[in-house]
Amino acid sequence: MLSSIVASSAFAELRATGDLGVVIERESGSAVIVNTTSHQALAKVDGLGDLSHASVVFSRDQRYAYVFGRDGGLSKIDLLQDKLDKRIVQAGNSIGGAISQDGKLIAVSNYTPGGVKIFSADTLALVADIPASYADGKLSKIVGLTDAPGQRFVFSLFDAGEIWTVDVKNPQKPVIQKYPNIGKEPYDALMAPDGHYYIAGLFGEPGLALLDLWQPELGVKRILPDYGKHDEKLPVYKMPHLEGWAVAGDYLLAPAIGHHEVLVIDKKTWQLVKAIPVPGQPVFVMARPDARQIWVNFAFPDNNQLLVIDAKDLSLTKLLTPGKGVLHMEFTPRGEQVWVALRDDNQVVVYDTETLQEVARLPVQKPNGIFFSARAHKIGL
Amino acid sequence: MLSSIVASSAFAELRATGDLGVVIERESGSAVIVNTTSHQALAKVDGLGDLSHASVVFSRDQRYAYVFGRDGGLSKIDLLQDKLDKRIVQAGNSIGGAISQDGKLIAVSNYTPGGVKIFSADTLALVADIPASYADGKLSKIVGLTDAPGQRFVFSLFDAGEIWTVDVKNPQKPVIQKYPNIGKEPYDALMAPDGHYYIAGLFGEPGLALLDLWQPELGVKRILPDYGKHDEKLPVYKMPHLEGWAVAGDYLLAPAIGHHEVLVIDKKTWQLVKAIPVPGQPVFVMARPDARQIWVNFAFPDNNQLLVIDAKDLSLTKLLTPGKGVLHMEFTPRGEQVWVALRDDNQVVVYDTETLQEVARLPVQKPNGIFFSARAHKIGL
Repeated sequence: MLSSIVASSAFAELRATGDLGVVIERESGSAVIVNTTSHQALAKVDGLGDLSHASVVFSRDQRYAYVFGRDGGLSKIDLLQDKLDKRIVQAGNSIGGAISQDGKLIAVSNYTPGGVKIFSADTLALVADIPASYADGKLSKIVGLTDAPGQRFVFSLFDAGEIWTVDVKNPQKPVIQKYPNIGKEPYDALMAPDGHYYIAGLFGEPGLALLDLWQPELGVKRILPDYGKHDEKLPVYKMPHLEGWAVAGDYLLAPAIGHHEVLVIDKKTWQLVKAIPVPGQPVFVMARPDARQIWVNFAFPDNNQLLVIDAKDLSLTKLLTPGKGVLHMEFTPRGEQVWVALRDDNQVVVYDTETLQEVARLPVQKPNGIFFSARAHKIGL
Repeated sequence: MLSSIVASSAFAELRATGDLGVVIERESGSAVIVNTTSHQALAKVDGLGDLSHASVVFSRDQRYAYVFGRDGGLSKIDLLQDKLDKRIVQAGNSIGGAISQDGKLIAVSNYTPGGVKIFSADTLALVADIPASYADGKLSKIVGLTDAPGQRFVFSLFDAGEIWTVDVKNPQKPVIQKYPNIGKEPYDALMAPDGHYYIAGLFGEPGLALLDLWQPELGVKRILPDYGKHDEKLPVYKMPHLEGWAVAGDYLLAPAIGHHEVLVIDKKTWQLVKAIPVPGQPVFVMARPDARQIWVNFAFPDNNQLLVIDAKDLSLTKLLTPGKGVLHMEFTPRGEQVWVALRDDNQVVVYDTETLQEVARLPVQKPNGIFFSARAHKIGL
């Protein structure tokens, strides 16, 4: 599978980092550095541990990719030198992370032990440890960790039913604000692309918990009281990722849980506007960067499909069948192309988003996540 | 003035390009390459011609900065090697340019001869020449050139009173769509950040011309019929730049022409919501990337001031006096800092946007524009 990797050395040629990305190979614990202009795999970096669930953030100069692995591993990949720069195993069980607004701090959300650890983005040295202790002295699993404007992180406590914000302007003395009783078992969360709203999904009861970060004094309120209240007869094959929600104009498009529907929610009133019937249980619902198209992938057994919705009138533009195991999509920064991970075909396929024609196909081993370096410049990932 | 420039060579150390930018030095025809993480000037590149009016776009890998000069010069700067890579003088009189969605084409808007020329971003070889000829066979000056999704460019014809879109999917055969009779003398234009709306200001009559790029078949319509209808007794010291308009939630904030006001416009109805009194004639009205703050600079004699407006309630947060000749501002991609050009102080000052405290000051000769490489990933610049 290395046949597609260009024989090149970062030392031999100058390389800029604006059009680079990494594709996660879940089973081999490796990441492939890719170039989105040439559609090439540049290098493979091994030794990243358990990547059965992985996410990636980028340094503000876009030189380094930080990979958060399922096993608590935090790996720093050098995109200029095609190598693992540093790696630590910082917890026993982890599910994601974020990078601070100023790029200096990496926060990781841990299940075991439950809490958030904050590291220097430069050295990966521990800077702050925030155990998620709640009423009975136990530690809560952490989910839905994102960065927020004002050098903050926001996350949810699954076991405690709380949302916390942490101001890390002085990382030695993080300032924590706790919002208790937000609902039972928040299982994931998302931040609006402008950092204004943080929304946690609830596993233990229907509805979503909304925190307005412009008016935190108002506390957390419950919205969409029917969200997640699914028919018991309909099995849920895969819980949707909340970060997959798409903002398009006045609407937020979100995957219904269990149902073959994409929900359209009014961003001003937080009311359901309509449910769009789709051919499977949606997982990721993502807007093209110009928000004109919404792309949707599906849980098993419909995970060979990829749906394109026109944001103009919410009509279905096209149903694509790119291959087996469509797990993740990533748009190029200005939206002209989209890269799609086909886990069971050991491939990544690239589409032109206007013609919906395939423009490239790259061999990658069991890809389950695609992350481009332009994420360095985004809020709330 | 080179004292602040770090003695370094791109060959001696690896350099990523995500946190780089250029500051234009208007009188010496040079550009200073800066690093926004370390607040350092890395190098100065000379020989860029007349930069009394200049704008900059970046290649999609963020390696190259393309500088459009007043004299028709198009200069390609290599941010990795601190040097001028290529330079052409492509017209007699030019005012700006744009880079195509796929990053392969550079378009330049010319006054003399009136029209748009399109070049290969790689070689700067001419790919297409689009003379702006209109009814009587003359050539019109071109203003308000921007890129748009779908590999298009959009621009306005000052003398003809027209808006044209050009689809350059096949750059050998550009497909031009003309919208005539949009109003008298469009003098500048802006694209909404998602590429949905293109709005041209009219010099020859009040109001603005709006083209909905999602529904171009509807044609161009007139909005804000009072915009630009200013009191003759009030001299206009500097025409505002339309690209300085800020989108904040449902509102568009725009500089009033001649008046000491920032206009708040409802994006859905295109009606004026209110006029915020400000201490001078506004020039640039720019939103912090998270849209929580709006920063405004002013025309002479109030060009020593910089106003911060809170987007939450449109209140005035603070009036800063950073120095003399506040000509331009540029936010870091995630908005934690803003760089401000002080032409008459020969300085650039950097503010923390949350504390509004100064964090750095760099010597730069007569700076009149600041452009960061994250622009590579934005639509409609």
